[in-house]
Amino acid sequence: MRAAVLRDRRFAVEQLPTPVPGPGEVLVKVRACGICGSDLHFFRHAHALVEQARKLGAPTEELERGLRTGLVLGHEFVGEIVAFGPGAGKGAFAVGDRVCSMPFVLRGAAPVLIGSSPEALGAYAEHMLLSEALLVKVDPSVPDEAAALTEPLGIAIHAVNKAALQGSDVAVVVGCGPIGLAITAVLKMRGVRHIVATDLSPRRRELAQTMGATLVLDGAAQPGAVAQAAALAGGAGLVIFENTGAHGMLSRLVLEAPPKSRLVVSGIAPGEESFHQMVAVLKELQFSFIVYYTPEEFASALEAIAERRFDWRPLVTGITGLDGVEAAFKALDDPEVHAKILIDPQRPGGLRPPG
Amino acid sequence: MRAAVLRDRRFAVEQLPTPVPGPGEVLVKVRACGICGSDLHFFRHAHALVEQARKLGAPTEELERGLRTGLVLGHEFVGEIVAFGPGAGKGAFAVGDRVCSMPFVLRGAAPVLIGSSPEALGAYAEHMLLSEALLVKVDPSVPDEAAALTEPLGIAIHAVNKAALQGSDVAVVVGCGPIGLAITAVLKMRGVRHIVATDLSPRRRELAQTMGATLVLDGAAQPGAVAQAAALAGGAGLVIFENTGAHGMLSRLVLEAPPKSRLVVSGIAPGEESFHQMVAVLKELQFSFIVYYTPEEFASALEAIAERRFDWRPLVTGITGLDGVEAAFKALDDPEVHAKILIDPQRPGGLRPPG
Repeated sequence: MRAAVLRDRRFAVEQLPTPVPGPGEVLVKVRACGICGSDLHFFRHAHALVEQARKLGAPTEELERGLRTGLVLGHEFVGEIVAFGPGAGKGAFAVGDRVCSMPFVLRGAAPVLIGSSPEALGAYAEHMLLSEALLVKVDPSVPDEAAALTEPLGIAIHAVNKAALQGSDVAVVVGCGPIGLAITAVLKMRGVRHIVATDLSPRRRELAQTMGATLVLDGAAQPGAVAQAAALAGGAGLVIFENTGAHGMLSRLVLEAPPKSRLVVSGIAPGEESFHQMVAVLKELQFSFIVYYTPEEFASALEAIAERRFDWRPLVTGITGLDGVEAAFKALDDPEVHAKILIDPQRPGGLRPPG
Repeated sequence: MRAAVLRDRRFAVEQLPTPVPGPGEVLVKVRACGICGSDLHFFRHAHALVEQARKLGAPTEELERGLRTGLVLGHEFVGEIVAFGPGAGKGAFAVGDRVCSMPFVLRGAAPVLIGSSPEALGAYAEHMLLSEALLVKVDPSVPDEAAALTEPLGIAIHAVNKAALQGSDVAVVVGCGPIGLAITAVLKMRGVRHIVATDLSPRRRELAQTMGATLVLDGAAQPGAVAQAAALAGGAGLVIFENTGAHGMLSRLVLEAPPKSRLVVSGIAPGEESFHQMVAVLKELQFSFIVYYTPEEFASALEAIAERRFDWRPLVTGITGLDGVEAAFKALDDPEVHAKILIDPQRPGGLRPPG
């Protein structure tokens, strides 16, 4: 099979052996896979990440081996079942079904994360293996492009659930990449009255408005988004979603947040971040750091898509074949042009508009 | 009236005019007042705090005026009603009643914090003013020493409530000053099976055991308290109470905490604290910063004391008259000797053992 292999900070389309499903596994033909912010982060900072992990005493052998021998990324996917491994295929699933899955395969004691080690190849490839126990079926009415957004939408649902919104809470979405935009959409679904979104990019602010933000502000605006949201909130609660991972952002939010604010942090800052702990204590702030979702949240994301409660079309700004993966990663450096680019591994060629 | 006035980093016992209760207020004779960790912090770092507040753009005039003209600290108190202001005294309270109160007086738009500005003198004095609306009556069976612990016990109850403990969660108490010890007692009240307490001081560890810790560990132990608690937890949740405010502690806990741990942070670190945000994200940690309590939590603290569910005696290690306040502050530098020292403003003299 063809796959976009990341090695030495470059993607190369290579022929790899099509994997063979083990017990309880299925082989799927990948129909679409999103390029995730964490993939971008990994592409840009892989060696720094290894360095940091080593400093923190985390095991790095697996990751280093992957970087040396080549990695196949991709964990936001929809696929079509083409074969079953031993013991699989006796239940709800048949060849030809389209499925999504949380990005894990169940092997041995612990689930293995898909798309971050040579142990579980990701979806930047024509085929991949999944665990049947984790599959959720995609309704025929759902386009591949929409189904591939199940994973990031699951994160957004998780983020909003962690915020434990009360009746009149006001939300601030800091950073309008795909996660911030999906969070905005989920807040709209939940009927939040004031959704203040902020980003340095005019194009991203425009998208935030499309996804449901009720007030969009330049990241450099004065007074800032938190102050304006606090004014809208009156005495009501404030939930701040920090999705940028920008250095210094957490510190700034601690100073700007009104007392009792809850921060839901998905932003992956590469180094150490500092803040005034005394200020956080005196304000009784709460930080919830998030990175994934529960199986129920994942399933509810696909459900929201199938029931057309999530307007996914504005998010998908480009589609590429495997040959265009590196160009797509470069294109994503400019927030004015793209938000989410999907990979269609079955169709050759480079980056093109969706539809 | 006599009061211990803090001015120029010294306490001096001075004659101040006995305050006159305004509308809705009561004058109480102070029967006992605890020396709080935040009072100690303020005594040691007042000028640095002003500096920091100024840097953060917070108003400092009031505080600076207080430092210049003299402050009367004290917000952990029990008093006896001696007079009512206009409109007060028509309800549940009578002269001679002993009362506690959250440390605020209701004047104008916002409640004024007692014991931190010249606007609302604290309980390091023979008399003080309280708002009748905030009073809770102390049962005659409750000794003054116990009633004065209502405030710190309220913080501990709040901390444990913020942790939202589930059935088999394991708790780690980092730092066994009065707040850590009270948290330990509340965890015991709640029936938590594993309460791992850690402190650098042998005496504090001994007190932690008395208050209900099931495992006490030197702060320098290897493996550390978090690792040992995680082993006890198996797959169950871990809640870590950080009460030291020690520089670098939060960073260390982020690295040591297992995924999904909840940190409840009461520790007031004086400067900026840094941590690996990516690690917190990947582990989905939660930080809840806390500093006070709800009115219900305050009332439930006094209830727990009255119902003898809180074994307060080991906590109180000394009592002093106003003349011994400065000596008591100095004595509290050594964790091997004292935990909580109470001030009895009605009785002259210095530091003595309780009872």
